[in-house]
Amino acid sequence: MTRQRVAIVGATGYAGAELTAILAHHPCVDLVSLSSGTTSSVPRLSELHSSLSDDDGPVVEPFDLARILAAAPQTVFLATPNELSAEIAPQLLDAGCSVIDLSGAFRLRDAQLYPRWYGFEHPRPALLEQAVYGLTEWCNGELRGARLIANPGCYPTAILLALRPLSYLIDREQTLVCDAKSGVSGAGKRAELAYSFSELAGNFKAYGVGQHRHEPELRERLHIGERTPLVFVPHLLPAVRGILATLHITFMKTMTEQEITNLYREAYGDAPFVHVRPPGQLPELKHVVGTAKAEIGFVLLNGGRRAVVVSVIDNLLKGAASQAVQNFNRLHGFDEKEGLAA
Amino acid sequence: MTRQRVAIVGATGYAGAELTAILAHHPCVDLVSLSSGTTSSVPRLSELHSSLSDDDGPVVEPFDLARILAAAPQTVFLATPNELSAEIAPQLLDAGCSVIDLSGAFRLRDAQLYPRWYGFEHPRPALLEQAVYGLTEWCNGELRGARLIANPGCYPTAILLALRPLSYLIDREQTLVCDAKSGVSGAGKRAELAYSFSELAGNFKAYGVGQHRHEPELRERLHIGERTPLVFVPHLLPAVRGILATLHITFMKTMTEQEITNLYREAYGDAPFVHVRPPGQLPELKHVVGTAKAEIGFVLLNGGRRAVVVSVIDNLLKGAASQAVQNFNRLHGFDEKEGLAA
Amino acid sequence: MTRQRVAIVGATGYAGAELTAILAHHPCVDLVSLSSGTTSSVPRLSELHSSLSDDDGPVVEPFDLARILAAAPQTVFLATPNELSAEIAPQLLDAGCSVIDLSGAFRLRDAQLYPRWYGFEHPRPALLEQAVYGLTEWCNGELRGARLIANPGCYPTAILLALRPLSYLIDREQTLVCDAKSGVSGAGKRAELAYSFSELAGNFKAYGVGQHRHEPELRERLHIGERTPLVFVPHLLPAVRGILATLHITFMKTMTEQEITNLYREAYGDAPFVHVRPPGQLPELKHVVGTAKAEIGFVLLNGGRRAVVVSVIDNLLKGAASQAVQNFNRLHGFDEKEGLAA
Amino acid sequence: MTRQRVAIVGATGYAGAELTAILAHHPCVDLVSLSSGTTSSVPRLSELHSSLSDDDGPVVEPFDLARILAAAPQTVFLATPNELSAEIAPQLLDAGCSVIDLSGAFRLRDAQLYPRWYGFEHPRPALLEQAVYGLTEWCNGELRGARLIANPGCYPTAILLALRPLSYLIDREQTLVCDAKSGVSGAGKRAELAYSFSELAGNFKAYGVGQHRHEPELRERLHIGERTPLVFVPHLLPAVRGILATLHITFMKTMTEQEITNLYREAYGDAPFVHVRPPGQLPELKHVVGTAKAEIGFVLLNGGRRAVVVSVIDNLLKGAASQAVQNFNRLHGFDEKEGLAA
Repeated sequence: MTRQRVAIVGATGYAGAELTAILAHHPCVDLVSLSSGTTSSVPRLSELHSSLSDDDGPVVEPFDLARILAAAPQTVFLATPNELSAEIAPQLLDAGCSVIDLSGAFRLRDAQLYPRWYGFEHPRPALLEQAVYGLTEWCNGELRGARLIANPGCYPTAILLALRPLSYLIDREQTLVCDAKSGVSGAGKRAELAYSFSELAGNFKAYGVGQHRHEPELRERLHIGERTPLVFVPHLLPAVRGILATLHITFMKTMTEQEITNLYREAYGDAPFVHVRPPGQLPELKHVVGTAKAEIGFVLLNGGRRAVVVSVIDNLLKGAASQAVQNFNRLHGFDEKEGLAA
Repeated sequence: MTRQRVAIVGATGYAGAELTAILAHHPCVDLVSLSSGTTSSVPRLSELHSSLSDDDGPVVEPFDLARILAAAPQTVFLATPNELSAEIAPQLLDAGCSVIDLSGAFRLRDAQLYPRWYGFEHPRPALLEQAVYGLTEWCNGELRGARLIANPGCYPTAILLALRPLSYLIDREQTLVCDAKSGVSGAGKRAELAYSFSELAGNFKAYGVGQHRHEPELRERLHIGERTPLVFVPHLLPAVRGILATLHITFMKTMTEQEITNLYREAYGDAPFVHVRPPGQLPELKHVVGTAKAEIGFVLLNGGRRAVVVSVIDNLLKGAASQAVQNFNRLHGFDEKEGLAA
Repeated sequence: MTRQRVAIVGATGYAGAELTAILAHHPCVDLVSLSSGTTSSVPRLSELHSSLSDDDGPVVEPFDLARILAAAPQTVFLATPNELSAEIAPQLLDAGCSVIDLSGAFRLRDAQLYPRWYGFEHPRPALLEQAVYGLTEWCNGELRGARLIANPGCYPTAILLALRPLSYLIDREQTLVCDAKSGVSGAGKRAELAYSFSELAGNFKAYGVGQHRHEPELRERLHIGERTPLVFVPHLLPAVRGILATLHITFMKTMTEQEITNLYREAYGDAPFVHVRPPGQLPELKHVVGTAKAEIGFVLLNGGRRAVVVSVIDNLLKGAASQAVQNFNRLHGFDEKEGLAA
Repeated sequence: MTRQRVAIVGATGYAGAELTAILAHHPCVDLVSLSSGTTSSVPRLSELHSSLSDDDGPVVEPFDLARILAAAPQTVFLATPNELSAEIAPQLLDAGCSVIDLSGAFRLRDAQLYPRWYGFEHPRPALLEQAVYGLTEWCNGELRGARLIANPGCYPTAILLALRPLSYLIDREQTLVCDAKSGVSGAGKRAELAYSFSELAGNFKAYGVGQHRHEPELRERLHIGERTPLVFVPHLLPAVRGILATLHITFMKTMTEQEITNLYREAYGDAPFVHVRPPGQLPELKHVVGTAKAEIGFVLLNGGRRAVVVSVIDNLLKGAASQAVQNFNRLHGFDEKEGLAA
C-alpha cells in the first residue's frame, strides 16, 4: 500500500468540503493541492468544514490548472461544475493522473444527450465510454486501476442501489415511479433567493419534473428507454442534508418478502455501506445523515405484486464524497472502508 | 340570515384551535360553548391560538356533554378523537343539533371497515349513510340543511380535489400512485418522543404504508376497489403545516394540456378556494400555508399519456377547519366565504 | 371617514408584501399604485403573498416615480432601501402626499449620524426634525395629520416598547443589555449565500455587535448618550419571522412586581396591540408571529434590583407593516385597529 | 497504556448515545456493559446512533446494577438522571470502579443547595468534596487517577471556558450577564408536548430565569456569591444541537484586544479543543456542532471597558460526551485527544 498524492479541485463547495474533510484524515493520502472551482477568493481550510483546522492540508487556492499539476498529484478529485470537469479531466488524464469526477461530465454514455440535458456539446465523447460509472457496489474489477471514474449523481445513487437488485423482476409495462426528496445542500452553495432560508423554511416543493439531468442517467443505468414509463420527480425538503427516494414498483410476478430479502442479501451481503432492513421496516433520513451509508427498506403490497421501496443516503456523502472515496480506495487496492467510518 | 349558536368540542387540539380562531370572528356565529375533547385541565382561550384573546368567546371547559347541551347550541363542531365523535354525534343529533364532525367517525360508508382501520366497531352504522361527505367543492345541494357532515381527512382532501376532475380518464390497469407529504401538525398535539423536535428536525420519513386509514377513504370516494392498484404513501415533513400530494397518473388515452385545463376549469372555475395553475406550473407548500386555499398544478409527460399532478393545502385549514367552515356556511345558506379570507 | 388613495413603493420586499396584504383588505383604502423599489422585473400580485390574488389591487410595476405620482395617491408607504426613501420622500411631500416611511431614512434626528451608520450624507436634514417617529403607542396627537412618519426599526420597536415605561427607573450607571434575536426575514429578501437555507438551518449567531444602525436609534429614543453603557447585540435565529429581545435591567431602587405591573398598565392599558403578561410569565416568539401584537413579560431578580424583561413582536408586522398601518389609521383619524386583527 | 473495561449507564439518552458512539471506536476501550437509565425496554445498539452498528458493542440492557457490576468494568460513565447518579455512584466507587458522572449529582460543592435546586437531599455529601469538577482545560493533575469526576453542565462549560481567563478582571459591581441559547437536545429525550416539533419549530423562548440549576454551578465555579449580580438567562433555540452563550462583561479597567487575546492564549494555547478567534470575530453555532470543540470570540466595546464574548459548543459533545472522554483520557493517562477528532 503506497500513499497517494492527491489533489482536490472544487474543495470549496459542499461536496468538495466533505471530500476534503475525509481525505485530510485518510491514512493513505497526502493532500498536495486544494483549490476552488473558480478563480475568485477562497476561504481558509478551517473555514471549509467544522472538522478541519488550517493544519490539516495545504492552503486552499483559486483555480489554476498549472499550479495543480505542479503539485504532481497522482489522483485528482474534481468537485467542479460539469463543464469545467469536461474540460480539465482530459488534461489531467494526459498528464498521467487518475481522475475521480463528482460532476455529471462523464456520467452519461451517450454524448448526444449532453446538449439537451447539460447545455453543452461534450468535448471528448470518446472518454464517455472509457469512464467507469462508480456506483461502487455494482463495480467489480473495473475500478481497480481505473483512469477516469464518473461518480454517480446523488439521486441515481439512492435509486439505483434500491432498484438494481430487483431490476429484472420489474414489470416494464407499468410505470416505475421514483418520487425522490432531497435536502437543500443538493443544490450546492447558492447565492440565490430561491435557496434562502426565508423562502425554504416550512416550505416543500417538487421541481424539474421531466427535466432533471439525473433522469437520463437513471434510464441509461437501468436500461430503460425513453418510451418506457419511468417517472422521476425530485422534491426539495426543508432540511440541509439527505435524500429519501420512495420507489413505487410493480413486479412481473407475485413476490414474497423472503425472495426480495434474498435478492438484496445477494447484492449487498458483503457491502459495508449498504444496509437492507427487514421486510416492512423503512429507513428514515436521520439514519444516514452524516454517515457514508445507504439504507434500504421495503413494504410489499397487493399480495406481492407491488412494493414500496425506500432508499436513503446522505447526498453529500454516499451521494458524492464518501462514494468517491470508496471508488478511490478500490482504484488503488486499499480497503474499501479506509478513511470512512463504516 | 340568522346567527347560529355554535359549540366546538375539541377546541384545544390544533384543528380545533384553528376552528375556534375562525369562528370567533365569523359574523354569523355566536360561540356558546368551547370545550376540550378530554376531561383534563384546559388552557385559557388566549392560549389556544395567537389570534385569540380571552374576550373572543366563552371560557374553555373540560369535556362534559350535559354542559355543552345546556348551552343550547344549534350547530356543534366535533374536533374530537374518532371514537368520541362516534359516541356523541348521535346524542347531539338526537338533541336537535346539526353536527359537523372533523374526525374519521363518519367518513367511511362501509361500517365493516371500522374495526380494521379505526380499531372499533361502529356504534351507529345507519348514520354512515346519512352523513354528507363534506368535500365542499363536490357537494351540491346536499350540504344545505344537512344534519351530519363528515369533514374529509386532510390527505383525501388534497388528493381527491386533484384527482376527481380527471377520474374517469385514469387508466385503472396502471398503478395510481399518491405520494403524499404532511407537516407534523397533522399528527395532532402529541406528547410523544417520535414527534419531538430533536427527533424530527432535519429528518424525513415514510410511514403507515398500506396501513393508513385515509386509504380506504380514498378508495371509497374514488370508487376504487381493494384489487385496483392504488398506492398511498404518506410521509412526515420537517415542517409544521401543510400537505403536498404528488400524484402519478396514467391516462387511458393521450391528453393535451388544454383538455386537462378545461376539466379543472369546469370543476373549479367558480370555486373560491381551489386554484388551478397553468400547465407546467406546480404549487409549493408555502403558497397555501395559513390560507383556506387548495392549489393544484400538473406536468404532462410521455406525450400526454402520463401526468404528475401536485396538490397542496394547509392540513389544518382546507384539510380540516376552514373546510368545516365552508360546509357550515353551505349548511346554513351563508356565503361560502363567510368568515374565511378568500 | 373618507377612503384614502394609497400607493406602496417597495411592495415586493417582505415587509412591503405584508403591507400590501393588509392594505388590500383595509376598508378605508383604495390601492392605486403598487411598485417595486427597483426597476427590474416584478412578480404578479398573487405571487407577493399567499393571501393575495391578482384581483386584490393594481398590477405591480417596476419603480417609476412619475408613474406613481400619476396615480394621484394621497398617502404613500415607502418600503424601500434607505437611500431611495431619503431621495423620494421629499418629492412625494412636495407633491402633496403624506409619506409613511418604513426605512431608516428619517428615523434618526441627528443628520450627522447618517454617514457613519447609514453610509450616506442625508439629503434633507431639515426633514429629520419634522418626521414623526411612529412608535405608535408613544405618539399622541402628533400622528394626526402628520406629513412624514418614520416607522421605527424592528429591534427598536421591540426594545423601546419594553423599556420606555421603566425608563426613568433604570440605573444608568449599570450596563443596559439588549440581547436581541431576530428571524431571518429581518434581513430582507436576500440572494446571498450567508442567508441560504443550508448555511442557516441549525445555525445561530450574533452579528453586527457595536455596528448595527438600530443602536443609535435606540440611544436617541432612550435619551442615552454614547458614553452611557448600552449594549445591543442582535442575533440571527434559524426561524423566518419574529424578534425576541431579552433586556437585562438594573433599577435605581428596589422594585416590586406590582409597581412594574402598574407602570406597564399605565402605558399600555388601552393599547390594543401591546399585551403585558403577569409577573414571571415570559412570552414566546410563537405568541406573536403572524399577528400585529407585541407581548411583554418580566421576571424580577435580586430582591427587586434587577429584572429580565422579554419582548416579542413579529418583525414584519408590529416591527414594520402593521405598525405602519396603525400609524396610517391614526394619521387619518381611523380606528387604530382598522384593517388589523386585534 | 492498558485498555480499560468500560460500562455506560444511560446509553439510551442523547448524551449517552454520543458517548457510546465515541467509546465504541476508542482504541483504549473495551465496552463491557451498555445499559439504559431505566428498567423499561431498550433499543438495539444500531438504533442508538447513526454511526453505530449492532456489532460495535454489547447488547443494550435495561438498568440493573448487579448485572453492570458483573461485567467487571473499571470505569463507569453515568449519563443517568441526577438522583440515580447520586444513588449508584457510591456503590460503584465501593466496588472499585472509577466513575465519570455526566449528571448534576456531584457538580455542586455545597450539599445544602441540592434540595432547592435539584429537589432531593444529597445522599452522600462527603463525596461532593472528593469529586473532581471536570472542566478539562482547567484541571491539572487532579484528573489523573481520579475516582469520581463530575462532568460540568453544558451551559457552565460554554460559559466558564469563556469567562475563566478574564475572571479576575471582571467588575463585580456591574451585572455579569450570561444570555445563553441552547438547542432542544439539551432538554434530553422528552416525550412532552412542550418539546414537540409543532410547538418548537419557528419558536424561540427564554425559560427558567432565576431558577436554572446551572446558575448555582456557575456561581460556585466563578466564586460569585448570591448577592453579586450574575444574571443567567437560558433560551431554547429551534435547532437540535449546540449552545451559544453571549456574555456581557464590564472590566475593572480599560482593556486592549491584545491583552484579552493574550489571556486567552495563556489559558488555551495548548488546549486541543478550545479555539479562540481573533478580536472582533465571533464564532457561530455551526462551527462546532458535531465536533468536540469550543470556540470563543469577543468584541471590545466602549473603548475597552466592556466586552461581548461569544462562546459556542456542541451541548452533547463538549457539553457532555466528548468532555467526559477528555476526562477519561486524562484520568488514565491517555492522550487527551484519543478517540476524539481534534
